[in-house]
Amino acid sequence: MSPTFDLLSLGEILLRLSPVGNERIARGSLFEKTIGGAELNVASGVSLLGLRTGILSRLPANALGTYAKNQVRFLGVSDDWLVYDDSKDARLGVYYYESGAYPRKPGVVYDRRHSSFTGIATDQFSPSMYESTRCFHTSGITLALCEKTRETAIAMIRAFKEQGALISFDVNFRGNLWTGPEARACIEGILPMVDIFFCSEETARLTFGMEGSAEEILRAFTRRYPIRIVASTQRTVHSPKVHDFTSVIYDARTNQYFREAPYEHIDVIDRIGSGDAYVAGVLYGLLSDPENLSRALSYGNACSAVKNTIPGDLPSCGKEEIDRIIAAHHATGRQSEMDR
Amino acid sequence: MSPTFDLLSLGEILLRLSPVGNERIARGSLFEKTIGGAELNVASGVSLLGLRTGILSRLPANALGTYAKNQVRFLGVSDDWLVYDDSKDARLGVYYYESGAYPRKPGVVYDRRHSSFTGIATDQFSPSMYESTRCFHTSGITLALCEKTRETAIAMIRAFKEQGALISFDVNFRGNLWTGPEARACIEGILPMVDIFFCSEETARLTFGMEGSAEEILRAFTRRYPIRIVASTQRTVHSPKVHDFTSVIYDARTNQYFREAPYEHIDVIDRIGSGDAYVAGVLYGLLSDPENLSRALSYGNACSAVKNTIPGDLPSCGKEEIDRIIAAHHATGRQSEMDR
Amino acid sequence: MSPTFDLLSLGEILLRLSPVGNERIARGSLFEKTIGGAELNVASGVSLLGLRTGILSRLPANALGTYAKNQVRFLGVSDDWLVYDDSKDARLGVYYYESGAYPRKPGVVYDRRHSSFTGIATDQFSPSMYESTRCFHTSGITLALCEKTRETAIAMIRAFKEQGALISFDVNFRGNLWTGPEARACIEGILPMVDIFFCSEETARLTFGMEGSAEEILRAFTRRYPIRIVASTQRTVHSPKVHDFTSVIYDARTNQYFREAPYEHIDVIDRIGSGDAYVAGVLYGLLSDPENLSRALSYGNACSAVKNTIPGDLPSCGKEEIDRIIAAHHATGRQSEMDR
Amino acid sequence: MSPTFDLLSLGEILLRLSPVGNERIARGSLFEKTIGGAELNVASGVSLLGLRTGILSRLPANALGTYAKNQVRFLGVSDDWLVYDDSKDARLGVYYYESGAYPRKPGVVYDRRHSSFTGIATDQFSPSMYESTRCFHTSGITLALCEKTRETAIAMIRAFKEQGALISFDVNFRGNLWTGPEARACIEGILPMVDIFFCSEETARLTFGMEGSAEEILRAFTRRYPIRIVASTQRTVHSPKVHDFTSVIYDARTNQYFREAPYEHIDVIDRIGSGDAYVAGVLYGLLSDPENLSRALSYGNACSAVKNTIPGDLPSCGKEEIDRIIAAHHATGRQSEMDR
Amino acid sequence: MSPTFDLLSLGEILLRLSPVGNERIARGSLFEKTIGGAELNVASGVSLLGLRTGILSRLPANALGTYAKNQVRFLGVSDDWLVYDDSKDARLGVYYYESGAYPRKPGVVYDRRHSSFTGIATDQFSPSMYESTRCFHTSGITLALCEKTRETAIAMIRAFKEQGALISFDVNFRGNLWTGPEARACIEGILPMVDIFFCSEETARLTFGMEGSAEEILRAFTRRYPIRIVASTQRTVHSPKVHDFTSVIYDARTNQYFREAPYEHIDVIDRIGSGDAYVAGVLYGLLSDPENLSRALSYGNACSAVKNTIPGDLPSCGKEEIDRIIAAHHATGRQSEMDR
Amino acid sequence: MSPTFDLLSLGEILLRLSPVGNERIARGSLFEKTIGGAELNVASGVSLLGLRTGILSRLPANALGTYAKNQVRFLGVSDDWLVYDDSKDARLGVYYYESGAYPRKPGVVYDRRHSSFTGIATDQFSPSMYESTRCFHTSGITLALCEKTRETAIAMIRAFKEQGALISFDVNFRGNLWTGPEARACIEGILPMVDIFFCSEETARLTFGMEGSAEEILRAFTRRYPIRIVASTQRTVHSPKVHDFTSVIYDARTNQYFREAPYEHIDVIDRIGSGDAYVAGVLYGLLSDPENLSRALSYGNACSAVKNTIPGDLPSCGKEEIDRIIAAHHATGRQSEMDR
Repeated sequence: MSPTFDLLSLGEILLRLSPVGNERIARGSLFEKTIGGAELNVASGVSLLGLRTGILSRLPANALGTYAKNQVRFLGVSDDWLVYDDSKDARLGVYYYESGAYPRKPGVVYDRRHSSFTGIATDQFSPSMYESTRCFHTSGITLALCEKTRETAIAMIRAFKEQGALISFDVNFRGNLWTGPEARACIEGILPMVDIFFCSEETARLTFGMEGSAEEILRAFTRRYPIRIVASTQRTVHSPKVHDFTSVIYDARTNQYFREAPYEHIDVIDRIGSGDAYVAGVLYGLLSDPENLSRALSYGNACSAVKNTIPGDLPSCGKEEIDRIIAAHHATGRQSEMDR
Repeated sequence: MSPTFDLLSLGEILLRLSPVGNERIARGSLFEKTIGGAELNVASGVSLLGLRTGILSRLPANALGTYAKNQVRFLGVSDDWLVYDDSKDARLGVYYYESGAYPRKPGVVYDRRHSSFTGIATDQFSPSMYESTRCFHTSGITLALCEKTRETAIAMIRAFKEQGALISFDVNFRGNLWTGPEARACIEGILPMVDIFFCSEETARLTFGMEGSAEEILRAFTRRYPIRIVASTQRTVHSPKVHDFTSVIYDARTNQYFREAPYEHIDVIDRIGSGDAYVAGVLYGLLSDPENLSRALSYGNACSAVKNTIPGDLPSCGKEEIDRIIAAHHATGRQSEMDR
Repeated sequence: MSPTFDLLSLGEILLRLSPVGNERIARGSLFEKTIGGAELNVASGVSLLGLRTGILSRLPANALGTYAKNQVRFLGVSDDWLVYDDSKDARLGVYYYESGAYPRKPGVVYDRRHSSFTGIATDQFSPSMYESTRCFHTSGITLALCEKTRETAIAMIRAFKEQGALISFDVNFRGNLWTGPEARACIEGILPMVDIFFCSEETARLTFGMEGSAEEILRAFTRRYPIRIVASTQRTVHSPKVHDFTSVIYDARTNQYFREAPYEHIDVIDRIGSGDAYVAGVLYGLLSDPENLSRALSYGNACSAVKNTIPGDLPSCGKEEIDRIIAAHHATGRQSEMDR
Repeated sequence: MSPTFDLLSLGEILLRLSPVGNERIARGSLFEKTIGGAELNVASGVSLLGLRTGILSRLPANALGTYAKNQVRFLGVSDDWLVYDDSKDARLGVYYYESGAYPRKPGVVYDRRHSSFTGIATDQFSPSMYESTRCFHTSGITLALCEKTRETAIAMIRAFKEQGALISFDVNFRGNLWTGPEARACIEGILPMVDIFFCSEETARLTFGMEGSAEEILRAFTRRYPIRIVASTQRTVHSPKVHDFTSVIYDARTNQYFREAPYEHIDVIDRIGSGDAYVAGVLYGLLSDPENLSRALSYGNACSAVKNTIPGDLPSCGKEEIDRIIAAHHATGRQSEMDR
Repeated sequence: MSPTFDLLSLGEILLRLSPVGNERIARGSLFEKTIGGAELNVASGVSLLGLRTGILSRLPANALGTYAKNQVRFLGVSDDWLVYDDSKDARLGVYYYESGAYPRKPGVVYDRRHSSFTGIATDQFSPSMYESTRCFHTSGITLALCEKTRETAIAMIRAFKEQGALISFDVNFRGNLWTGPEARACIEGILPMVDIFFCSEETARLTFGMEGSAEEILRAFTRRYPIRIVASTQRTVHSPKVHDFTSVIYDARTNQYFREAPYEHIDVIDRIGSGDAYVAGVLYGLLSDPENLSRALSYGNACSAVKNTIPGDLPSCGKEEIDRIIAAHHATGRQSEMDR
Repeated sequence: MSPTFDLLSLGEILLRLSPVGNERIARGSLFEKTIGGAELNVASGVSLLGLRTGILSRLPANALGTYAKNQVRFLGVSDDWLVYDDSKDARLGVYYYESGAYPRKPGVVYDRRHSSFTGIATDQFSPSMYESTRCFHTSGITLALCEKTRETAIAMIRAFKEQGALISFDVNFRGNLWTGPEARACIEGILPMVDIFFCSEETARLTFGMEGSAEEILRAFTRRYPIRIVASTQRTVHSPKVHDFTSVIYDARTNQYFREAPYEHIDVIDRIGSGDAYVAGVLYGLLSDPENLSRALSYGNACSAVKNTIPGDLPSCGKEEIDRIIAAHHATGRQSEMDR
């Protein structure tokens, strides 16, 4: 019997370079180096909570690819499904990120075109993976990067679906990668295969043309497509350093909505990846206790809220820490300031 | 005539290791290195304000002991009363600290068992120290560490008391070192010798079984024991980065309570040691102007409030700076944003 | 024809040394090194917005002078008008700055006496500069430093004025350099030549003895002197880390006041230079669209507000970024949190 | 069928803390943080060369244990065989290391007593591991730490031997852990089970009382015990920053000695772990091509030589890089200075 | 009259990222960030020595392009001839560099394909530049990058030649960009226009098929083509940290060779750019004193030798410092260890 | 009875600022901050070896003065004899230092004019110090700084001499502070009071006009003046990173010369202060065992040799470490590479 993964995600792994402290991209003499990428962030978050995950990606066969591979392992995500590009053009996509401070917004420069990931194809992977996986996740970024990644993603969604895996999809709309109509056309093609769908209210309205209340929008997706669960995050940005966060989940089978009080006045140290942490928390909840959507919602909200306090793309809180945060969020009365 | 110390404190000196910036203990590649320890923090704070202090402690006879000794001197605290452990097992206790950001609390990992300090004994010190000191301070941490430190602390309290020194004691309850009933039994044994007693309202209730208002609790201690002064801090934790702080002091001889308006919305950079800075401010006040408890309260509150803005365990503000902070706190009307 | 500068400013360039992160001047092992100086900050800000500027200054002929010269070029400010001091006493003035956190104010130590700048004289410069410049700017700091810099500044103001350049002057009162009466006497001597005058309400009252409302004060200056434009910043300091900022501009020719809603709850990372950034924004506005004072006001406010979020003395936002900040400040409705 | 490991090693994982650059333990404000440990270093080196390895160790169940676990994964070593200590006394052993510069030797402070590893026992591991492993490695350090680790190591050697695994053992004599006679008595008890034996000439003479030439000593071990292969490193220390390195291997079955020219004038950046890297190279050679001892020798020498150029305990060169270094070492004629 | 440049060079500006200290690309958490590029390095070196230079290049219109532009100015190189790419694909080429330590060679990973520079074209520049420049320099890297950069380079060589500028060309052969025969074919096409030719002996033999002694080879180039001066560096690599360096120059008009004693045992901190620094020194010599080839040789050798001691691609020594190094190299007798 | 000092030294304390790693003063964004000064370096070295020392100096009453004071204490040097300057002009002298690498020499920029130290005067100190001190040390730098420091130094030499203290004097000739003839005239005035005289052979020849062999020169000083001991260092500079070091001491009373084999190929990390460390070692030897000049020589040589390996001005090796270095230097046969 093959080893079993709870979650495999497909996505690009990027080198992330950020100035130290409050310095800017256009000045200073140091970059902090780490890796990130929406789908890796999700796999990493689920792994931290205790499930077995892997990332399907393609890296250059050079020192940066080695760095990325080793970091993937550091995160507890399996590197069994990484493939390598040893062509002369092999490259790891890069993005540069600087944090914001009101009235200055965070800044980002993407340099991900022509990366080795854009050459990923299904025939680079053993078909055995389709059978050994409980859930497959990818996002709109993978669909948007290029024709080849789109084909690969769609072929994998189909193959995983056929083998009975749950299909999770996060729209993750990025206006710098494609237009709204392009996104809509493409994503509507895969929604018939999606079980768990993550879409912000704004994207639902602007890109998918949905109307009505947030609740109506979530339900509308499940009426058009055989989606089981739709989740939508609700973030209030007071300033680049202070956000509120909560979400709503709709379960089409029971026609129920799940909500909880927002995390208010989150100390935002690094906002990147907090949406992916939400997906990770919800997927962890669904994979570890499928019928308990209220619990999945709590994991999603807590993972996302706390990710904002962690530098870099990637979450770093294990299950015990998330459980303490959920308990504190639900608690009333005096709380200890620190455990010692 | 021997040199005279205004304050000697007995306590463990720890190596403190913290990730840089917002990084976490479980990640990253650097630790900021400093020293700390509740009783050293107190001695250091009193020294910064201008009195002569020393620390009674035991260090390993290795490079880390040398580091700690030199840092003690940097702080203006005398190293005359440091003793050294040259056994093979000699070690400096360590603790690892990471700061919090809502909804993530600060994190701490203690690694202080079996340290050289746990072998401290009265016969390692010259008895002359009992005569040359105006005030002796220690805390519940020293009592809780092990049998030997407890015996040493109690013997020293007794010997200093016999020579007429003021005895200052801070409960500093730590649930990871002993239980509430253990703490209560031990501390009640020394309270008959204590002149100045620091105890939080919460500890008074939970550990000592006190009831009634905060004021009633403070007075109750002085009725059961011949304590002259009881001080209790009042901290409101809005988030790991924003606290309010004030305190109340009760003088048993005059049956008076002393209070002042809280410092509100303190920018908390490092909360560790702010309680010790409070003790330092109050002791400085009492030792430099014994009858002026209102002034002692102001020093305690200002020292504590501003310690929150300083990285590491240790305070760093001299008397002139504290005086400016007190003046600003008491002032009304427009204030300069910066002195230049 | 000579090359044309939109703005030349006269002022000292200082080495600025600051502890890293939240460390203090009196502790720690590193200083961040950069340059600053009120008039350089102004020239740099105008240059970032797209105009051609230069700095009139005098540097030591050593490695620190080279550092300063190269940084000036990095900023896009011309080093054509830098002169060098190769005497044995040559030195670059230094200042040490640490940021504040409530209840601790920012701290600054100046070490600028006897610097090479104090030997600056008009005969070190080619008179051609007077003809090739649209606007000349200096501040009260240059007047206050010493007799020689005062003479040089006044001579230059006169010579630029004669050649038709606009004269811009920022009072920038510093109590550690001269007294109020000294400042008043000196500045009143140059106000007959000033076209654009920057003065805070507080300085107007305390130093110049003005009375009445802020509006009345601004107008009063233009009645006493042939000043065309008076601008005054309005900063509310909630804490060293949170300010509000706006300003008012009075146009004597049209007898109009210009105001806009304040930037509220600015995330202050480094407050130094935000007043200079305001001057830069206003001068950019006036030089690029002389009749549009409302636009000049918006540039001034935006440049100043955002400077607070940038470490060091110097601004770092180009015109495109400032335009986005102004647009966001004026916008209503939902805004993107980040552009990607 | 269970997954198969090429190598499992048993040993303590330590937190290693080193001053940055040329700073000393007793000064400065930062420590570089990494992990190390003789047997982990070996497993990591073998893994880098392409085989599947794991580490048998015991970590505290706290943030430092998480850090160590994640770093183990970063290294490509399986964390399947890590067990956790959740007692109150749980701790990760620490060592502090500063590099040397002639005439100052490197400095080290160990703080490893009472660590969680000292509580490791065979019943914490699934017996399945004995069957699924080709080679088991441990060293004299594990034998020396305490009674319990010694018992565990000996029981594991016996159990792996019974299941047919090769037994590799490195004497790694440390005078601060035990005496020569203690080491001799203990190690002589396990040598009847050892297949591959690493012992320096000096230890052979001083601890095991061997006499004669280096060659005679190697052979003598194989006559007294059923050891197949004995390897001995030969290091010449010109200064803390310049070493020469080579080794000699003796194959008892063929009665052959293997040697090659030393790497001369190695640029020593960090000498720690270079002996372990040698073991890793030899074991990789033997496990990947068991009859080719000349090749094993070349891998051992190259891995050790190049480890000296890498900061920290751990090697970082993959097989391709080691192959290039071996080729360059064996080459004659002009070589490229850099590949680009 | 237009402003006059002594030297314009055409070439790509790269972001250079290097691990701090002795860390490796595949590990660690920081990159030092700077810029480099063969032709920029040359322009920067000539500028440091006191001539007026500019760089012809194309940068992305984003924060990294701004960073590169500002750094160019920091170097004293004019940014007048930088053009910007505001397409979606705009990118700054990157290279990652780690230093070597024997037996480990330096490592480099290039990620420069598809950069904005590859879209550079003559019509992006004002033709006035051809008339206002004394010398034009480019290298084989620009020819090798892509079809478009090759066309642009050749067109510019032709246009500058027609306007009477000296043409300087450095072969700079890079096997990862093109093959030897490709390089030969292309370069032979431009040699008829080249006045000053830089070519290593090895490249002359392997790529151009030259035979005979080094001297014969240099002369042979001038017989086949109307080249005036041929210069060839001679580097002996003892280890990645110790090199010797000298060169030979041949003057075809006088049929003279120029040589000097090598700089021996150079402390190599960063070897990158030392060849470009040589070109800069020679060009400075030729442009400032055209008939004195012995002086040009001394500047070339000194600039190159000392560049090895400077981190990053770029030189940092002004004329005064280079003159002191030349004087010390030519001196006999006791020398001061430091000037103070 | 007053406390007794083994050594008091008089000299300026400077802030030392150095670029990190191999960066240069004229580039980069960080300075490492420490303190230094020839006479403080001596006091610190003697204190590290176990004697009681203090520094007579004058600091500004600001945060930098506090920093310097705390660092003095960190070094184990008494701050009892520091006096403070609270004038507006108060300043701490600064020097900037960058290390060299062949063929680039170390670089230094002094900015020490007008410092608070230049206002030091005898009436700022209690005369009791003259009686409580065994040895007084100062150097030619203090004489050279200005008229006032010269007067103060000479007055103190006289007063200490009168009270029976040994007078130690190091010529420390600095051409940037005074000329040779000025130095000679001044120093010849104090030599009648000097007991222990440190002078390099070169200075003896160039400044004092001595002739003959090194030995003859040392003796000549003791014939002209009632000097008891003359010591002269002998440094061979192979490159900025490799020196040899030894010295010769002449004892006039016994007419004996003391020498030992040089430390060869010292790994020079920071050469500054190695001459002062020599003085410290010799003074420690003479003060702890006055008749054993051979031992004093060994301490001087070892302290100086090892100081070269320590970053910053200040030594950091205690007596135990120096004893190990002396033992290793005198030993023959195999030595351990590291003690563990």
